[in-house]
Amino acid sequence: MLAAGGARVVRIASRGQADPPGQWYDQAEAEFVLLLAGAARLGFVDGTERDLAPGDWAVIPAHCRHRVAWTDPARETLWLAVHMPPA
Amino acid sequence: MLAAGGARVVRIASRGQADPPGQWYDQAEAEFVLLLAGAARLGFVDGTERDLAPGDWAVIPAHCRHRVAWTDPARETLWLAVHMPPA
Repeated sequence: MLAAGGARVVRIASRGQADPPGQWYDQAEAEFVLLLAGAARLGFVDGTERDLAPGDWAVIPAHCRHRVAWTDPARETLWLAVHMPPA
Repeated sequence: MLAAGGARVVRIASRGQADPPGQWYDQAEAEFVLLLAGAARLGFVDGTERDLAPGDWAVIPAHCRHRVAWTDPARETLWLAVHMPPA
């Protein structure tokens, strides 16, 4: 969607999609996510979960294993994600 | 540069520019900033300052008065800023 100085900005649309339990994203770069619309839940490898409503954001450090645990099946969920450049 | 679901993403280039002491940004929306290149310093109304190197980021809450206290005059500083949508 956009790349600048090593950062990549992407918009992601989901409707009910989630990652299977036990399947983790393990990314080399930190990521900033902002929920634009809908509702979602992030899950982390330590067992914590985080509900996101529109306007909520999270920074996911590099190699912090996480998954999308849930998105609302009844409406579109929109995410803005910024993948940080490598340090 | 990009608008999605009420969020605006902008890329800002500076070379030595700073805001005059005592002049503050007081924004109705929270802002996420990521330094892509160069070097900068943010100042806050409580007197704290924060140096930013490439890869460093900050979330500035709505109505948190801040200014760009310094950018490196010797090279280009690049910022990626995400203005959050109103809650």
